Amino acid sequence: MTPRTIADLRTPAVLVDVARVNANISRMQASASAHGLRLRPHAKTHKSPVIARWQLEAGAVGVCCAKLAEAEVFADAGIDDLRLPYPIQPSNADRVVRLLDRARISIVVDDLTVAQAWSAAMCAAGRTLDVLVKVDVGFHRCGIDPDSPDAGRMVAAVGSLPALRLKGVLSHAGHGYQARSEEELASIAAEEARLLQQVAACARSQGATIEEISVGATPTARFNLTAAGPTELRPGNYVYFDRTQVALGAATLRDCALTVLASVVSRHQDRVIVDSGSKTLSTDLMRGDPKAGYGLVFRDVETGSEIDEGLHIERLSEEHATVRVMSATRRPDPGDRVRILPNHSCVVSNLVDEVVLVDGTRVLERLPVAARGRTW
Amino acid sequence: MTPRTIADLRTPAVLVDVARVNANISRMQASASAHGLRLRPHAKTHKSPVIARWQLEAGAVGVCCAKLAEAEVFADAGIDDLRLPYPIQPSNADRVVRLLDRARISIVVDDLTVAQAWSAAMCAAGRTLDVLVKVDVGFHRCGIDPDSPDAGRMVAAVGSLPALRLKGVLSHAGHGYQARSEEELASIAAEEARLLQQVAACARSQGATIEEISVGATPTARFNLTAAGPTELRPGNYVYFDRTQVALGAATLRDCALTVLASVVSRHQDRVIVDSGSKTLSTDLMRGDPKAGYGLVFRDVETGSEIDEGLHIERLSEEHATVRVMSATRRPDPGDRVRILPNHSCVVSNLVDEVVLVDGTRVLERLPVAARGRTW
Repeated sequence: MTPRTIADLRTPAVLVDVARVNANISRMQASASAHGLRLRPHAKTHKSPVIARWQLEAGAVGVCCAKLAEAEVFADAGIDDLRLPYPIQPSNADRVVRLLDRARISIVVDDLTVAQAWSAAMCAAGRTLDVLVKVDVGFHRCGIDPDSPDAGRMVAAVGSLPALRLKGVLSHAGHGYQARSEEELASIAAEEARLLQQVAACARSQGATIEEISVGATPTARFNLTAAGPTELRPGNYVYFDRTQVALGAATLRDCALTVLASVVSRHQDRVIVDSGSKTLSTDLMRGDPKAGYGLVFRDVETGSEIDEGLHIERLSEEHATVRVMSATRRPDPGDRVRILPNHSCVVSNLVDEVVLVDGTRVLERLPVAARGRTW
Repeated sequence: MTPRTIADLRTPAVLVDVARVNANISRMQASASAHGLRLRPHAKTHKSPVIARWQLEAGAVGVCCAKLAEAEVFADAGIDDLRLPYPIQPSNADRVVRLLDRARISIVVDDLTVAQAWSAAMCAAGRTLDVLVKVDVGFHRCGIDPDSPDAGRMVAAVGSLPALRLKGVLSHAGHGYQARSEEELASIAAEEARLLQQVAACARSQGATIEEISVGATPTARFNLTAAGPTELRPGNYVYFDRTQVALGAATLRDCALTVLASVVSRHQDRVIVDSGSKTLSTDLMRGDPKAGYGLVFRDVETGSEIDEGLHIERLSEEHATVRVMSATRRPDPGDRVRILPNHSCVVSNLVDEVVLVDGTRVLERLPVAARGRTW
């Protein structure tokens, strides 16, 4: 039987509300365009060339992919402008060369030795590759240190390598996810812009051409709009949003497009057990806090607009969510459905081969998560 | 190019050492057989009918699956004795009926109302279904309360339902994963056996026939062997083991069959960034402790037998592991390989479409994780 409404679905099922996705795409695009920024969404959240097309049709200049295997899926689907804001290694040069036959590809580097190896590989293949230098603006993951006296010289040195075409500098303010206030987010975005401009100025003084200053993270995106410097926005999560983004003020509950439909399978005095475990919700925490649980349960399965504070997802096993039932609240029976807002939507879509596109309670179709698990 | 050794593999790659798997299978089977226990491994760890066959050929009486979608994959592959130690719901009766055409199927219940609905559904289909009653022996997830005055009566009531064939009682001592000593594990296993025998005795006094007392969890398996009562062992993780099982004394490093091969992609003063993020290692913690990090890094990639204490996987993003480099240790360069023992192997195999079977450093073949993501 083809499911017609969400009540017909087997659980657990990952639902994606198409109206909310489209509203999120339109809103981010309008914000970027209004401020003269190019929008290049990170596709890691939806991992779907279909949704990437919606973003491109709305005005995005291209998409980002994390890994080459993800980019290969999008190139296969005809998406022809792909940026990889990830320090992929020159041992993959053969794959980049093959991608260059059918798409505009840009990568990032944060190490001159690696950049030299990329240059040598591209020379050997007779190709030229667009690169941006990744700058660490405070997350302390990848990226060159912008306060190093060598920062500008390193960027310029990348720009002078044969077979590489330096496009600019790029950052990801992942530390925004730990911000505790709007002011803190604003200050992270301001510092990000300042550091990128500082590196760009030093690089230019060394003779480099810096066309692009690219920033990307959904929590800081609204503050990136008005900061001086950035030319490109690369948020990913905004297409679905999630509980974390609501806590960060980037979205409201009614913006969240990805939810998990699950069923109660066991009932006890103090708890119910639901069939969406870590294989569906993931064990990603809510901003590092195990006490905050593994998602929020909505009051009703139809609208997904109000949270039931009396049901707390306190523990996950692989196939079980243990939901603590607080006093004076409903205690769902086995077979009853619940709808859950996950802590982190990107990892949820990575766990399923397909999501179910819905319009309210109506099931539209199943959408393959085409680039799911493409980590290499 | 077909990879001949692990050095030829793209990363991240999930490696499964076949010799270690076979040693783990033989050892658990020998222990169970020596104590007169039937072994019915949980297939959730490997999710592969190929490895299930190895377990059956070694002497297992059947396998366990968590969900019907997993069982459907194993039945499709010809595995014909499947137990689902999960309270699947009667709304799935159509699927159980289809499975009964090609396999012996048993399920668990922990609620009389649900059992009555199963009985009605099986009556309507003209079939009989084997059931066990799940007993909560201290994990407080699913299961009836063994100390309830109604426990024995509930089991007997299930046994008297038409179209259900009561096989016995079943438990999962998941709280063993939090044990801090051998003594604590031994005491959990002893209490598990005592509670199951207590429920079985009450049920028998109410007229029920209890053939099977089934226990299942890798940490407590070695203590279940000598306890009076159990007739069946259902461990799953023992086929691969992982960092958690080593900490629990269930395995040594040299027993761990599943590891992750990854590459350094970025290098800094205090850290290196490795290409195995939460999409490969999962964010599952080491027994609830975020400070323990997300896996252990081996000293060398070839043998997987000694840990490099100077490299600490302190943070995961989806595609990045941030590895803190302690003083006086090696600091790998971009492109260098590392080999990682994950906190939890079951969830790692659920993240990849295939694992790479290896014999030491030699690549044998790719093995599909056939039941990956089959959560419904």
